Amino acid sequence: MRIGVVGAIGYTGSAVLGALAGRPDTQVTVVTSRGEAGGCLTDLLPHLSGVPGYRDLVLEDPADLEKIRRDSPARFPEVIFLAVSHRASMALVPRVLALGAKAIDLTGDFRLKSLLMYPMWYKVEHEAPEYLEEAVYGLPEIHREEIRRARLVANPGCYPTCVILSLLPLAEKALLGPGSPIIADCKSGVSGAGRTAAVPSLFSEVAENFRAYKVLGHPHTPEMIQELSTAGGKPLRLSFTPHLVPMNRGIEATVYLDSEKLPPYKEIRDLYEARYRDEPFVRFRPEGTIPQTVDVRGTNFCDVALFHDEGPGILKIVSVIDNLARGAATQAVANLNLMAGVDEGLGLPLVGLRP
Amino acid sequence: MRIGVVGAIGYTGSAVLGALAGRPDTQVTVVTSRGEAGGCLTDLLPHLSGVPGYRDLVLEDPADLEKIRRDSPARFPEVIFLAVSHRASMALVPRVLALGAKAIDLTGDFRLKSLLMYPMWYKVEHEAPEYLEEAVYGLPEIHREEIRRARLVANPGCYPTCVILSLLPLAEKALLGPGSPIIADCKSGVSGAGRTAAVPSLFSEVAENFRAYKVLGHPHTPEMIQELSTAGGKPLRLSFTPHLVPMNRGIEATVYLDSEKLPPYKEIRDLYEARYRDEPFVRFRPEGTIPQTVDVRGTNFCDVALFHDEGPGILKIVSVIDNLARGAATQAVANLNLMAGVDEGLGLPLVGLRP
Amino acid sequence: MRIGVVGAIGYTGSAVLGALAGRPDTQVTVVTSRGEAGGCLTDLLPHLSGVPGYRDLVLEDPADLEKIRRDSPARFPEVIFLAVSHRASMALVPRVLALGAKAIDLTGDFRLKSLLMYPMWYKVEHEAPEYLEEAVYGLPEIHREEIRRARLVANPGCYPTCVILSLLPLAEKALLGPGSPIIADCKSGVSGAGRTAAVPSLFSEVAENFRAYKVLGHPHTPEMIQELSTAGGKPLRLSFTPHLVPMNRGIEATVYLDSEKLPPYKEIRDLYEARYRDEPFVRFRPEGTIPQTVDVRGTNFCDVALFHDEGPGILKIVSVIDNLARGAATQAVANLNLMAGVDEGLGLPLVGLRP
Amino acid sequence: MRIGVVGAIGYTGSAVLGALAGRPDTQVTVVTSRGEAGGCLTDLLPHLSGVPGYRDLVLEDPADLEKIRRDSPARFPEVIFLAVSHRASMALVPRVLALGAKAIDLTGDFRLKSLLMYPMWYKVEHEAPEYLEEAVYGLPEIHREEIRRARLVANPGCYPTCVILSLLPLAEKALLGPGSPIIADCKSGVSGAGRTAAVPSLFSEVAENFRAYKVLGHPHTPEMIQELSTAGGKPLRLSFTPHLVPMNRGIEATVYLDSEKLPPYKEIRDLYEARYRDEPFVRFRPEGTIPQTVDVRGTNFCDVALFHDEGPGILKIVSVIDNLARGAATQAVANLNLMAGVDEGLGLPLVGLRP
Repeated sequence: MRIGVVGAIGYTGSAVLGALAGRPDTQVTVVTSRGEAGGCLTDLLPHLSGVPGYRDLVLEDPADLEKIRRDSPARFPEVIFLAVSHRASMALVPRVLALGAKAIDLTGDFRLKSLLMYPMWYKVEHEAPEYLEEAVYGLPEIHREEIRRARLVANPGCYPTCVILSLLPLAEKALLGPGSPIIADCKSGVSGAGRTAAVPSLFSEVAENFRAYKVLGHPHTPEMIQELSTAGGKPLRLSFTPHLVPMNRGIEATVYLDSEKLPPYKEIRDLYEARYRDEPFVRFRPEGTIPQTVDVRGTNFCDVALFHDEGPGILKIVSVIDNLARGAATQAVANLNLMAGVDEGLGLPLVGLRP
Repeated sequence: MRIGVVGAIGYTGSAVLGALAGRPDTQVTVVTSRGEAGGCLTDLLPHLSGVPGYRDLVLEDPADLEKIRRDSPARFPEVIFLAVSHRASMALVPRVLALGAKAIDLTGDFRLKSLLMYPMWYKVEHEAPEYLEEAVYGLPEIHREEIRRARLVANPGCYPTCVILSLLPLAEKALLGPGSPIIADCKSGVSGAGRTAAVPSLFSEVAENFRAYKVLGHPHTPEMIQELSTAGGKPLRLSFTPHLVPMNRGIEATVYLDSEKLPPYKEIRDLYEARYRDEPFVRFRPEGTIPQTVDVRGTNFCDVALFHDEGPGILKIVSVIDNLARGAATQAVANLNLMAGVDEGLGLPLVGLRP
Repeated sequence: MRIGVVGAIGYTGSAVLGALAGRPDTQVTVVTSRGEAGGCLTDLLPHLSGVPGYRDLVLEDPADLEKIRRDSPARFPEVIFLAVSHRASMALVPRVLALGAKAIDLTGDFRLKSLLMYPMWYKVEHEAPEYLEEAVYGLPEIHREEIRRARLVANPGCYPTCVILSLLPLAEKALLGPGSPIIADCKSGVSGAGRTAAVPSLFSEVAENFRAYKVLGHPHTPEMIQELSTAGGKPLRLSFTPHLVPMNRGIEATVYLDSEKLPPYKEIRDLYEARYRDEPFVRFRPEGTIPQTVDVRGTNFCDVALFHDEGPGILKIVSVIDNLARGAATQAVANLNLMAGVDEGLGLPLVGLRP
Repeated sequence: MRIGVVGAIGYTGSAVLGALAGRPDTQVTVVTSRGEAGGCLTDLLPHLSGVPGYRDLVLEDPADLEKIRRDSPARFPEVIFLAVSHRASMALVPRVLALGAKAIDLTGDFRLKSLLMYPMWYKVEHEAPEYLEEAVYGLPEIHREEIRRARLVANPGCYPTCVILSLLPLAEKALLGPGSPIIADCKSGVSGAGRTAAVPSLFSEVAENFRAYKVLGHPHTPEMIQELSTAGGKPLRLSFTPHLVPMNRGIEATVYLDSEKLPPYKEIRDLYEARYRDEPFVRFRPEGTIPQTVDVRGTNFCDVALFHDEGPGILKIVSVIDNLARGAATQAVANLNLMAGVDEGLGLPLVGLRP
């Protein structure tokens, strides 16, 4: 399989390249960067310089995709990962599909089914609404079969991946509804902000600091509501708050539900146990175990645990992912695997780095 | 004023010494350490070696307090800070008071008024219950007048300081009650775990990691409930979850309430505005401002902000303190100031380090 | 004394404001920022909002200094700190002096006496060479008396402060010379790079990473050589290498000399002991003690220690400072104190934050 | 191949398990831990719980090796990794070899050829001196052929790996000698201190701090001297200083030589270029490139670069490794591969995590 990565030197794009390194069945043939076109990939990203197939890759301009297709059809990618800024995929996806490649889009541009959501949450009008219906939301636990047949996969956001997997067993049983609020208090490492020069992402603004951000209106909110309310057939009251942790990678979600409005705790445990037993990349943790982000670093796993705070009557769901892996690159490669008809976990690491 | 610090080389004890450095009106005359008795204070803590009065201090054994009183009455402290492990103050406080000194206790041992709470939350029987009534909970915003007259101050826990100040204006107006749950999702730097050798506090267990801990049953919970339910005269449904942030200092609390059960948002803002206008160490932040821990690092300030998530109907309260300063040492020194009849903020820094 | 800070919202400028907070004898009357003119200082830097005198300060444009002098002479500063980018002071210093204020310049623009050094090390032609002779290099341990009388102080660079104080006792005795090389291997926290949006200063580029930078040609090199060779009256072979540490504040220098070319170790210890005994802000550490950056964080102290590696015959000098304090803001305020005829340490903290 | 790991839950042992995960040609059949015998491996190390072969592993007591051999010969390992504390391998290695397994020892116990070095540098008498001659120093770049035939490999220390590879091309050409000193200023992440509860390794002692440690007498020194002086046939004057960086993984060495005593810089570059051209795990970096630890994180690579500081006449060699990977676990697995007659890099990651 010939692979392209648009936006190859950002954190997400280079994580996709990392996740594909050493695979005998894929070959990265096109890498692009608007700002660094003409540069050698491994000069800019020396950590990739140990991969034989990457050493000769030269960054191209994404504006030249049509030219590459025309001049070098033999190396034109069959599947292209779009690891660009939000909004940039609205123009790229139609071009990629028109050129005959499949697209795995890591932006938020094709995740929402309702056209109205884009101006509301992203403050933009959608530029390619005709692809919204075709796009498959790339969370294998919900849409595995559609992904296998997809031409365009909208890879889920990092926070939504974690929050949806925290609540999916309840949603699917229609146990979530508008009766009582769901609180999703989430914490993320800084790499989620991307490799863009900006004062709030400077080391000295982040280290030895902890803060909430976008306390109101984070654009990942409607994804969570879309997938969970669709799974359960009911509207939801969900309040999401992201926080920035002084670390590179990892997302933790602590989700709170009023347990007085839910079935007994034991039944809920059984529900999660059953739902996730056969999922290769969700690990439902034993009673009393607290997931921590280091347990999933570098991997495609999502670890989930339940706790019942009996005094106030609160169900706490704690879950963790690696925002750049399960929240972006390894989930995208799992989607590639599904689209290619191979094992969902092919080439994905079973173990991350610890510490 | 002659001052003693029992437990001088832990993070809390040395932060008390830091907060007292350079004051002309106090003199630290006794410092103790069980493990390092006989050692020179500034050999063990070189960062204190620039303080003239500290250079000659030799650590003594806390078992020798009576002997010091007898042999060197002229240097026996008038006020003693107890910066020791939980449970250790149960024996120390009676001794300190019997020796004629006042006590500012930084442990949890005298914070709870109900004797039953100790076995329930701390898993111990109280050893000195006769002092529980006399002990004043050292949060100036609630108990300022009692602190001025106190012989024994129970300095508040770090998390409770932050959570109580987040909710106090609502509690005092009896707006919190058992009708709907309060979610307090809190995050703390690692210094809160103290300077004790333990695997979970190692750099390589904490750095590049984020985790919840004591998801059920953290012993700071009953303090929050005691003070807030007393302030409002009503029981509460409060669920508290602490998380560990890879940083040294700082606590952030994001507190969630069902805004459908509360007065209009504008009224609540006015309530906070009015309640904290004259408080010297609470800064109610302007609309839209998000508090971050770095803003209060090294200081006695608590910054509080409100947000109304209208979609799901959730009031979010975000507040921050420095766990070793407002959450321990500077609050203890503010209590000393009140007990001494001087300005509450005497000697406390107006600005912390940033970055 | 009326004080101005040009470049008030950078890390250095705001550290100067922090170091001046709460002083009864100074009043900050002018703060400027090119990018944020018109903004409220404490909205941009909430950590300063607890300082009564700072709450009403509005950032002005540095282009308006003449206008401020003309329109509001009563608040025009007597002393102005220049906390701007390198090269910007070449134009600012002549304006400030012409307006009748004294200048404490925190850039490198007036540190070097030889005009030739600017194109060689800073890659620029100097724009105001006529002030180079008048400028006093603001290291009190060398130039205390000249600083008291100065109109223009060139505040030393962070690395040079640490390296010069490591070697000064040897240099002054003419024990350093061209015969054998001096190796200065230095490590700095990230705040030294300033509060400027740049990819290499992003959290995710710095955290969990360690790297040398500017391995050849760092512009702090000639300052070290100028001051040390002037002190000893001899040229030097000094090789300086800076490294970036994933932390906010602190510089450590490990300096290596061939001990076979030096007097016996015991004599060298005595030399340091004698030289620094009466220096208020250099702490020569006892034998066997290893300085660490946390010991000086937030303070004006420089801690220095010696070690003799007898096998290979190497003298190791280890010293530490806080790059934003002794390496910038508190040293600048010490210079202000000397210029004002008050105690060198007035208002400077005796203790920093630990941890 | 059946594999055992003694000391499986420390950072080094678990890194070995991580490096072996998913290999079809090896099976980990025995894992031991003195403190946690009886526990389930993946309960203690949840990050390994995604590896099918690891889920059922129960930690055994290393005292039971003989019993395991006797009772369950079919699962007794053919090769055992010893990831224990220094000194513990002196007793373990003879037992392992007597049981018929090969040993890859990750401690310092069998690295030094001269018996006298153990009391001098490790402050202990060696307990099994009869194995010192047989032990092969496991740095493939020097001893590849001997490793293939070895029964006992002494896996190199982390610092020596980095320093030796920095200097090997010069040493092999007899260009290093007693005439002028070699300065090796090294910086390491904290995981090198192991997963042992100790105050100096606490997060709050390390984060936002930088310090040298063991400034005199670090026991990795004699390894460096042994290998480099043997390679060149000459004694050396080498001074080594380790420093602790607030990060988990990574070692950087900046090595200084007097370039006036060396051949022209261009010749030295050619020498390194030629020496490392065919080495699979040393990447000699292009002129002007500065290695950083993140480039090698999680991998077996060592990146090396040269710089000529012409003014003072100093050659600077900058090199980086991952202390837990190249400095321990992946180098140990490379040694296993050589011993097993398979490709040296089998199963080792080509790309680490960035960021």
